[in-house]
Amino acid sequence: MAGLSVHSVLVTGANRGLGLGFVQHFLRMPKPPQWIFAGCRDPKGQKAQELQNLASKHPNIIIIPLEVSDPASIKAAAAKVGEHLGGSGLNLLINNAGIAKPKSLDMETLEDMSEVYTTNTIGPLLMAQAFLPLLKKAAQEHAGSGLSCSKAAIINMSSYAGSIEDMYVWEFGQVVSYRCSKAALNMLSKCQSLAYKEHGILCVALHPGWVQTDMGGGGSFKPPLTVDDSVQGMLKVLSSISEKETGAFLDWEGKVIPW
Amino acid sequence: MAGLSVHSVLVTGANRGLGLGFVQHFLRMPKPPQWIFAGCRDPKGQKAQELQNLASKHPNIIIIPLEVSDPASIKAAAAKVGEHLGGSGLNLLINNAGIAKPKSLDMETLEDMSEVYTTNTIGPLLMAQAFLPLLKKAAQEHAGSGLSCSKAAIINMSSYAGSIEDMYVWEFGQVVSYRCSKAALNMLSKCQSLAYKEHGILCVALHPGWVQTDMGGGGSFKPPLTVDDSVQGMLKVLSSISEKETGAFLDWEGKVIPW
Repeated sequence: MAGLSVHSVLVTGANRGLGLGFVQHFLRMPKPPQWIFAGCRDPKGQKAQELQNLASKHPNIIIIPLEVSDPASIKAAAAKVGEHLGGSGLNLLINNAGIAKPKSLDMETLEDMSEVYTTNTIGPLLMAQAFLPLLKKAAQEHAGSGLSCSKAAIINMSSYAGSIEDMYVWEFGQVVSYRCSKAALNMLSKCQSLAYKEHGILCVALHPGWVQTDMGGGGSFKPPLTVDDSVQGMLKVLSSISEKETGAFLDWEGKVIPW
Repeated sequence: MAGLSVHSVLVTGANRGLGLGFVQHFLRMPKPPQWIFAGCRDPKGQKAQELQNLASKHPNIIIIPLEVSDPASIKAAAAKVGEHLGGSGLNLLINNAGIAKPKSLDMETLEDMSEVYTTNTIGPLLMAQAFLPLLKKAAQEHAGSGLSCSKAAIINMSSYAGSIEDMYVWEFGQVVSYRCSKAALNMLSKCQSLAYKEHGILCVALHPGWVQTDMGGGGSFKPPLTVDDSVQGMLKVLSSISEKETGAFLDWEGKVIPW
């Protein structure tokens, strides 16, 4: 990962699955970030135990209580992160937190559609708004003129299921609330790339692959990718992209996915 | 409009703009529909006056109180429409009702994002669910084996602003809440086309063009298209599409728009 070198990173949904995988991979880098902010809905809960253990051994991990569907929680998290950074910027915001409700189109409800959209689409929008001053600061601190993830970037964890052109595994699960939220997240990523380019911030939507997580592995089917393979691939992609890729929708191997 | 001949149609947001335009054009057809259901949030309000005048002269117009963001209102509307149809099906559901909030990305809020998504995306989903039995019935009544708008169809009024590939008039207005809702609506249309094909129901997302309506005409700028031109174009498109086009994103002239 020679090309990716960040002073600070914030990962949402960092207590398990891909989020925890990102934290672990950042720790293993030749030059780990000075600050790894690990956003987590319930830091004291059972599901945050592994993250807590990791943080107890690595003082550069700061666990941040964070519910991305709650503007007040986001605001408090941004203030806390800003305090720790003490005047320096945030290089990388990884909007990883997301939910899915496995349902067929006929069974979708207003409540589920709304809840999934709030976490998967509105959350990343509000997160970027709240952390924009810190991301701008990181971009200003960086010497280079182009865009890069080592400078300042917003990474939105999308999904191939958000591709309208190529209806990924429709037969496996309709999950319309999830698909709609990810198509909208792709649109948001494109909007962010256009609005934040002038501030020196790169924005992409990433598909992690079909990964062995609680979300990916429903029922008896075992998804093809491990968390390790997926995160390693995505970090390689992040290390290589520049202003040419801002606004793109890429998979964990760097391939462009059709909208 | 030789190719489009429907027994019944429901248009949401039918009291003004494109919705009212659709009602007027259906009335002017050589063989007007026997039932034109005109969904309207506030049938007794000032903004429904023109629709009321029209309905007082044309007994085939039935004004239906309808708030597409409210599942109970949708359910009541479906029951009312079913009563009028007295056992026959509904050929055409035009999900036209929509809202927009002109804002820059920096000023978007959870409330606005959520409200726009509920009306523009969740509304069309709930409408299709509630009217599915009537649409299925229309498809069964129809002789032909293929798909057509004369048989049974769901038309979702989308917008070029929902194209992620081609960021239409970004400089004119960021309207991120609107863009995200329309990208998600395009995804919904694709999902509906896949799920409802077996029931004989055609589904498309339509861009009406940039039209001289309350929504289209903000400030001093005059949009290029009149409501008449737009609706005439769209009805021509509806008259010609078949199973080849189900799931597509088309403009008022029938051109395919990139997702």
